[in-house]
Amino acid sequence: MYRVLITTVPFGQNNKEPLEKLVAAGLEYVINPLGRKLKETELAEMIGDFDVLIAGTEKISAKVLERATNLKLIARVGIGLDNLDLLEARRRGIQVTYTPDAPAPAVAELTIGLILSLLRSIHLSNDELHNGKWTRYFGRRIANCTVGIIGVGRIGSKVIQHLQAFGVDRILATDTDPRVYSKFNQDVEWVDRETIYRESDIVTVHIPLDHSTRNMIRRREMLLMKSDAIVVNASRGGIVNEADLADILREGHLGGAAMDVFDTEPYTGELANIDRCLLTAHMGSMSIDCREQMEVEATDEAVRFAAGAELKCPVPEQEYQIKELDFQNE
Amino acid sequence: MYRVLITTVPFGQNNKEPLEKLVAAGLEYVINPLGRKLKETELAEMIGDFDVLIAGTEKISAKVLERATNLKLIARVGIGLDNLDLLEARRRGIQVTYTPDAPAPAVAELTIGLILSLLRSIHLSNDELHNGKWTRYFGRRIANCTVGIIGVGRIGSKVIQHLQAFGVDRILATDTDPRVYSKFNQDVEWVDRETIYRESDIVTVHIPLDHSTRNMIRRREMLLMKSDAIVVNASRGGIVNEADLADILREGHLGGAAMDVFDTEPYTGELANIDRCLLTAHMGSMSIDCREQMEVEATDEAVRFAAGAELKCPVPEQEYQIKELDFQNE
Repeated sequence: MYRVLITTVPFGQNNKEPLEKLVAAGLEYVINPLGRKLKETELAEMIGDFDVLIAGTEKISAKVLERATNLKLIARVGIGLDNLDLLEARRRGIQVTYTPDAPAPAVAELTIGLILSLLRSIHLSNDELHNGKWTRYFGRRIANCTVGIIGVGRIGSKVIQHLQAFGVDRILATDTDPRVYSKFNQDVEWVDRETIYRESDIVTVHIPLDHSTRNMIRRREMLLMKSDAIVVNASRGGIVNEADLADILREGHLGGAAMDVFDTEPYTGELANIDRCLLTAHMGSMSIDCREQMEVEATDEAVRFAAGAELKCPVPEQEYQIKELDFQNE
Repeated sequence: MYRVLITTVPFGQNNKEPLEKLVAAGLEYVINPLGRKLKETELAEMIGDFDVLIAGTEKISAKVLERATNLKLIARVGIGLDNLDLLEARRRGIQVTYTPDAPAPAVAELTIGLILSLLRSIHLSNDELHNGKWTRYFGRRIANCTVGIIGVGRIGSKVIQHLQAFGVDRILATDTDPRVYSKFNQDVEWVDRETIYRESDIVTVHIPLDHSTRNMIRRREMLLMKSDAIVVNASRGGIVNEADLADILREGHLGGAAMDVFDTEPYTGELANIDRCLLTAHMGSMSIDCREQMEVEATDEAVRFAAGAELKCPVPEQEYQIKELDFQNE
């Protein structure tokens, strides 16, 4: 009988279906007893002789995999693979699946929510009123902004759709894969990153974290932006450099920023001392429906694997190639 | 030479055009020197022999108008007329204009921002992170909600357009004027208010304040709502009863509420002690573009009046009839 370790938490909290599916398939499971994102050493100690790992964003390094002597499948609940040593998994014959589509609608909606909150100072006015103060903040309408989207994959595409529905004045976009351009041949201007930095009122990134995107937006890029521009990162921590952002905001540049993801999570850094930096706790995919779908999809892969059936969403070859490049660039 | 008192503040702050227009027309103006919403007695003392009042939401009562011996025009910057004794103005031969279209886009965008913030707990997670805490809140996607709109005028219509663009599952709406039904004959279910209270995940009101809408949503109506429903009021204070809302939230009913408007502004009441009540300082129309348009439109009326030209947007007869009913119901 296969044994499954579920490290991502919460899991099966609102909907018991994934857990019931495991039981029905005769799979024994253990849910991460610490109730939070595991550290590398904690996972290395916990992994033991589990056959299947239903994983979150915790670090699954070569060191962890070395201890995972029985592991045959890693089913990622989510899309990002920056936490996972894909090449080492392959060397050890461990298959990896993910759930790339499920989180997109929830991340896109959160992104729009973060933008509207920043543009209208909703969070600031709320804090003031809860402290007995009353300030009528002037804001900007999203419709009048130039919005720059870096990365037009599953999430970036949905963000563009939402922006178009708001009648956004000007949408700039860029992607490393020019094939996406044909998805929005009207009403989107395809430009380079520099143009996005220089001309956008709002810059939002929707890309994976790898060697080519780590620290993509540092001091230099922030200084290219308009003095009242806002930066949104609901993709992966590390793409927007946190220390540089804190410095820049303290110096009075930029209108504000929204960060849902961080280098180290839980986050406890300097941005927490800056009012016009809107912070959320990696909640992009944390809508009930998307989370449930992600959990069900990852569980289904575990069940398929146990039954000897073909996996539905193995990580594509391209992701392994990116990791090869990462490795060469390290 | 006509003299103009501008009571609404800020005025001409981002765009000097309205002030320049007054000067160019040879009109002398004074801007409210207190820099905040005037009290009734303050306005009564200040109104003196001004010919034109460019007004905000401060109370313009019979007592005020009695002192306004020279007043000939009130140009409201905005749409609501609840603050103004229209009938007394007419008795005294004072004309009244307003700017009904300008605020709508900004109010509609703020409404969507408030809804997304509540659904995803953006404001709560932000407060926690700024206090060194990390909680990943589960949320709901707006697309999966049933949204009930009470009042489908200029603002409610735009809110519906935004909701449709998010692919909202089910939109319920009601209005006292059945002619609006034809604007959205598809995808909107026209129902009575009770159905909206009972079946909506989100209830948002976009109606004027008058005898028929004051205290429209009290304890009884809130108790009809789902236990996790959210209520949004970005129209006028007094439509959602504040004391009842505070009680209901304290008792654990409702998922949350967002209030941009209050019985008494600046607001300092009990809702400020309830975390899941999102509060903003009457900022519905406070986008730079909408505010500018409102100020320009009201100023243009003052200039037209001074030139003896026809006014462009006098308050329609229907508003006087509503006030007659208000008077009878008092």
